[in-house]
Amino acid sequence: MHRVIIVGAGFGGLAVAKGLARLPAEITLIDRQNHHLFQPLLYQVATAGLSPADIAWPIRRLVRSQRNARVLLGEVTGVDPLRKVVRLGGRPMAYDWLVIATGASHGYFGHEDWAEHAPGLKDLDDATRIRRQLLLAFERAEMASSPELCARLLTIAIVGGGPTGVEMAGAVAELARRALAADFREIDPRQTRVLLLEAGPRLLPSFPEELSRYTEAALRRLGVEVRLGKAVTRCGADGVTLGDEVIEAGTIIWAAGVTASPAARWLGIAGDRAGRVPVGPDLRPAGLDDVYVIGDTAIVRGAPLPGIAPVAKQQGAYVAHAIQARVLGSQEPPPFVYRDRGLLATIGRRAAVISYRRMRLKGRLAWWLWGAAHIYFLVSLRNRLIVVTQWLWSYLAFERGARLITGLKRLP
Amino acid sequence: MHRVIIVGAGFGGLAVAKGLARLPAEITLIDRQNHHLFQPLLYQVATAGLSPADIAWPIRRLVRSQRNARVLLGEVTGVDPLRKVVRLGGRPMAYDWLVIATGASHGYFGHEDWAEHAPGLKDLDDATRIRRQLLLAFERAEMASSPELCARLLTIAIVGGGPTGVEMAGAVAELARRALAADFREIDPRQTRVLLLEAGPRLLPSFPEELSRYTEAALRRLGVEVRLGKAVTRCGADGVTLGDEVIEAGTIIWAAGVTASPAARWLGIAGDRAGRVPVGPDLRPAGLDDVYVIGDTAIVRGAPLPGIAPVAKQQGAYVAHAIQARVLGSQEPPPFVYRDRGLLATIGRRAAVISYRRMRLKGRLAWWLWGAAHIYFLVSLRNRLIVVTQWLWSYLAFERGARLITGLKRLP
Repeated sequence: MHRVIIVGAGFGGLAVAKGLARLPAEITLIDRQNHHLFQPLLYQVATAGLSPADIAWPIRRLVRSQRNARVLLGEVTGVDPLRKVVRLGGRPMAYDWLVIATGASHGYFGHEDWAEHAPGLKDLDDATRIRRQLLLAFERAEMASSPELCARLLTIAIVGGGPTGVEMAGAVAELARRALAADFREIDPRQTRVLLLEAGPRLLPSFPEELSRYTEAALRRLGVEVRLGKAVTRCGADGVTLGDEVIEAGTIIWAAGVTASPAARWLGIAGDRAGRVPVGPDLRPAGLDDVYVIGDTAIVRGAPLPGIAPVAKQQGAYVAHAIQARVLGSQEPPPFVYRDRGLLATIGRRAAVISYRRMRLKGRLAWWLWGAAHIYFLVSLRNRLIVVTQWLWSYLAFERGARLITGLKRLP
Repeated sequence: MHRVIIVGAGFGGLAVAKGLARLPAEITLIDRQNHHLFQPLLYQVATAGLSPADIAWPIRRLVRSQRNARVLLGEVTGVDPLRKVVRLGGRPMAYDWLVIATGASHGYFGHEDWAEHAPGLKDLDDATRIRRQLLLAFERAEMASSPELCARLLTIAIVGGGPTGVEMAGAVAELARRALAADFREIDPRQTRVLLLEAGPRLLPSFPEELSRYTEAALRRLGVEVRLGKAVTRCGADGVTLGDEVIEAGTIIWAAGVTASPAARWLGIAGDRAGRVPVGPDLRPAGLDDVYVIGDTAIVRGAPLPGIAPVAKQQGAYVAHAIQARVLGSQEPPPFVYRDRGLLATIGRRAAVISYRRMRLKGRLAWWLWGAAHIYFLVSLRNRLIVVTQWLWSYLAFERGARLITGLKRLP
């Protein structure tokens, strides 16, 4: 029996498992979480709009009826590509085919000490941690002993002007200006300063320039201070330094850099600057015939692709096809080609941008399409119903449904 | 301006605040959480049926429009009833009227070292912790190296046969036997051993005996082993000891004893065995004219009441009325009398018990009434919609919507 090990049950890994449903093989799907996460809506958990379970599903449930697949919860600590073995905790597991789809985490450009002060957003624990920090900032400001402390607590800096930074900035501004506006007595949450810091010359650098300009204007209308063209040189407990300007901020959120999981190290391959594994058009690293690397963990040599769900999904489907062909001895598929599914980012209430081939869409229609697309891609009917209910309520009542500070007892 | 301080924003404290909405006074509502919690459904969060935010609301939101009230997030560390001061963190706050409604937490009858092995269920962090432990037990059993380890992991003991213990036992049994049944390959979750341990002679001792018998039979039908008449003598990492019988159990959940918050100590008053503050029929402790103690923190001398929401709510309304009368110089209300609202407990799918005056209801009708009552008492329209959606989906699909293990990175 052919043994396929898939490490990571994100969009990519799950697509591989699903694509191999009919193969007479033993498929092992390993993840260090018990759930598949719909990352595109993670920022809404961090800003109190959705609950964690609304955008997550137990991986086991997703492959329940696929009898050739099993799921293991655990952390892969290494790979031995010569002996064809994966180490799961202390336990070696042999494979015939290995797929690495472990995604990416935050990267601080070598300043890992910034992580403590500027948390990033990759999993549900990150999201509830940022939610706690944001909501606590308002609670502490309400009781602050001095106007200076209050002003610092109510300054929130978001580092990085890509889609995550833009979405966070818009959602934080709406949280402060609308959902929380009437709930305090000493402070006025509408005075909250939200800064979006981007080192490059414009927001959303992967989008057409026209949409970047629209995004910047829409964020400014929401009261976000957009700062372009200056890199962050320090993140600390007191705030963020931009060139030689110190911005006192009680909360810093990191949306600037990602670094791939340690897959390159496992395989003994030199990664690129962001730690990604270079792969050929067949999604295999040079010299490793039985290993595929996909999604945010990989970089296709000469043809880099954006770190978005459709890329991971298409690569996963491709790899399933390739493994199936090689197991069955049929013809291997031609080199992987990404079919563009467009780029989307939402800014706030009735404001989003979509770039799809030559089409550029912005504003209200883009926002409704963005919402419809995200509901469509949610995995289960239950989650669709719940997310639609939460969104409708937020839309009509200008509120946020998950304004919950959890884990307080365990705080220092 | 009269200053009223209310400590605790549970059912009792919130009822006081709401009842004082029209009083020209300065009302301060203090809680160590930012949310009011609908505790009767907390067991559903612990068993992966509901999300934390489904049963919680920001306290600020609940008194947003009440202009005489403000909300502070913080922990009260002491009271000085002579100087009429509450200490919030390091800060003294003066009151004219003080209401203590701080509720209860788990009590281990002097064996506080059991807490680590047998967590109880009082707040949302407790609930997500128990959820993590329950779901992890199945994940670990799937990878267990020996049948003995597997059997221990799949043994779940619940200590205490009151409503919380009964509801947990039923929900855990249904989680294992239905929601998880088809999701594993190595283990059969239907083999899970669920034990409900009660030291007294019957379950639900505060209910009529007929309903206790029905509850026991209904739990046995769900596969729960009910053990009556023997007290737990030890809880440890390996399991629970019942008399001289050691039951190896991977998970122990404590639903046996509660202990009141430290209010008695704050006031310099001798509490009862469970730490509750003895109060007169006017809900004031002897000798303290300006202090009211209500809900699970208090015990009415000579007329003990159950620790349920209707008691706290009615006491809260009564205290609001009394404070208002004393501030306005009008006639003080007659002694507090509890109007019986009945006792409810749910066992599982289409099985619940209700005792209301001379009425005893069990089975399907009781279950539907139980559900309707709980939906009715949820605070906001949004939460009603979400909980109904979650429940409908669980009912129709035999599933659980929040099978989420969070906080894994921070685990040892």
